[in-house]
Amino acid sequence: MTERIFNFSAGPAVLPVPVLEEAQRDLLSLPGVGMSVMEISHRSKTFDEIIAGAESGMRELLNIPGNYHILFLQGGASLQFSTVPMNFLPADGSADYVITGSWGKKALKEGKKVGSVNVAATMADGGFTRVPSREEMNLNPHAAYVHITTNETIEGVEWKREPEVGDVPLVADASSNILSREIDVNRYGLIYAGAQKNMGPSGVTVVILRDDLLQRVPEGLATMLDYRTHVENKSLYNTPNTWGIYILGLVCKWLKDKGGVAAMERENEEKAQLLYDVIDSTDFYRGHADADCRSLMNVTFRLPDQELEKKFVSEATAQGLDGLKGHRSVGGIRASIYNAFPRAGVEALVSFMKDFERRNG
Amino acid sequence: MTERIFNFSAGPAVLPVPVLEEAQRDLLSLPGVGMSVMEISHRSKTFDEIIAGAESGMRELLNIPGNYHILFLQGGASLQFSTVPMNFLPADGSADYVITGSWGKKALKEGKKVGSVNVAATMADGGFTRVPSREEMNLNPHAAYVHITTNETIEGVEWKREPEVGDVPLVADASSNILSREIDVNRYGLIYAGAQKNMGPSGVTVVILRDDLLQRVPEGLATMLDYRTHVENKSLYNTPNTWGIYILGLVCKWLKDKGGVAAMERENEEKAQLLYDVIDSTDFYRGHADADCRSLMNVTFRLPDQELEKKFVSEATAQGLDGLKGHRSVGGIRASIYNAFPRAGVEALVSFMKDFERRNG
Repeated sequence: MTERIFNFSAGPAVLPVPVLEEAQRDLLSLPGVGMSVMEISHRSKTFDEIIAGAESGMRELLNIPGNYHILFLQGGASLQFSTVPMNFLPADGSADYVITGSWGKKALKEGKKVGSVNVAATMADGGFTRVPSREEMNLNPHAAYVHITTNETIEGVEWKREPEVGDVPLVADASSNILSREIDVNRYGLIYAGAQKNMGPSGVTVVILRDDLLQRVPEGLATMLDYRTHVENKSLYNTPNTWGIYILGLVCKWLKDKGGVAAMERENEEKAQLLYDVIDSTDFYRGHADADCRSLMNVTFRLPDQELEKKFVSEATAQGLDGLKGHRSVGGIRASIYNAFPRAGVEALVSFMKDFERRNG
Repeated sequence: MTERIFNFSAGPAVLPVPVLEEAQRDLLSLPGVGMSVMEISHRSKTFDEIIAGAESGMRELLNIPGNYHILFLQGGASLQFSTVPMNFLPADGSADYVITGSWGKKALKEGKKVGSVNVAATMADGGFTRVPSREEMNLNPHAAYVHITTNETIEGVEWKREPEVGDVPLVADASSNILSREIDVNRYGLIYAGAQKNMGPSGVTVVILRDDLLQRVPEGLATMLDYRTHVENKSLYNTPNTWGIYILGLVCKWLKDKGGVAAMERENEEKAQLLYDVIDSTDFYRGHADADCRSLMNVTFRLPDQELEKKFVSEATAQGLDGLKGHRSVGGIRASIYNAFPRAGVEALVSFMKDFERRNG
């Protein structure tokens, strides 16, 4: 195998090697088909099987009930920021947004363009280091929906349990922690996620949508922005990202072979703990998020000063630990350790961190 | 190499074998990078080079002037059907649509949802067999834009020259013939195209947009649906389809190595002529489109009856000539022979057609 480095990128991110190997092997011709996955019609029997496999993979892994649709769309979470309110925020209604970081702010901005929104809570004052308590949220019992970001990729802040929102549909941007741990899908009205962190390559957006919500969609929306279009056409109204859906299906298969989401969750907890143990053991490294809200996917921390952070990133990169520079908006270090990120890479980073502290602490 | 068949699919469609081979070789690790293309950050230097290469490839191949932007978006032509009027059809204006087939009808339907549209011409009465003459078009000199479909993939009807529209911006859905022949980009205000026919895999939409039109974009659009967002962020406002853009760049490189669009145009004319010669030589096969409007990309024709058409498709498939069944809306046979479709495949189809006629004529 060609030499590969440890890729801590926040997304697009590391993919499972067995998935890449299968994609490579069959790239010129799917067995028995005589064409590349990229060349086959999205209306062909072969692709029908591919998209059905991706859907059943997601359904099985997250135990998604029959009254939820699974869609494979395009445009990323960023387009969902608009599609959600276009479909579910009526002219005479209001939607609640709980802001726990940069992505929640972006969702809010697009919601505002569509209709009336209520910031039920924002953790901006604390620098987005935690999620709010129930008491800190000013939830409207008549809200069209409550929007949360289950894991803030940039700040490394994660909801460990869904907030209690009563009968109001909970809408979640789960881009950076979907499939990383078990969830009860019944607690959500809609979950959306870009694929490029835990599910596959960029260019596929997964939407998990409770069927009864479709009755709320207003008439007159652009066909491509109306969820009903994609439900009725099983994500094949127009040509989807066929390659991306194929890879996503292979990732689901890989994850099932690994023991599913429960097994992955244990592994993710262990991987993250290795890093948080180093952070907690010293004042040299300071975690960004509060301990009870810190992300298993994006471990964010600071060093004593920016010069040291720069040196840290530069030396780590030289040792094949790539993508550790924090997002430009918060600085510091961010180690993204999604499902497919190998434990060996975390161990390598732990060693590097200890060594770096010894030399610079 | 794994055995490959001749793939006449209308899209996603055949890709150049050297492109597939390079993608296969580097799938697990780009040389010197240590990660798959699918795993690298869209903010990385490596991806900067990939997207810059795709852009300069397109610019060079179509001789795109400096006052035109080249965007790599998501959602296909189907989303552009809405994005175009959202950006360029003002509340007090009207847009002209020239309808030469099924895709033009879809564009019109979405335009109507946004604002006032004028059907400058529709060729529906003739069953979409040709483009209108200048005299047949009722063009509004004050239109916000004139929309055409440069090649109707389903009917196989192609504009051989752009219509004269004066100072009104010409907007073209060029999904199924972009890069197949030389065009004068200066004659267009905006060209959009799904990649999955002549440029790459599905999931990438190319938009070529004249800079001065951006001044017409209204405030308040969803960020992802506002062309200015993607111009200002060079298609990197959010995570694009990185894999698709990579393949598109490789396709551009392959096309340049082949001699560019002019050389490809000659080859496409020759390939299509081989099929049209058979059709013109007999009453057994009847071409759908008028001779002066028939497509070099999608050769559509009928047989004496539907039973024979079914038999034709079935026997062709058995001989490794795949994807010849016409679109369900028009029936008959459709041979899609895009840039990457090998001449040997056209010759194989010609032989098969002659033989089939001998046996069934």
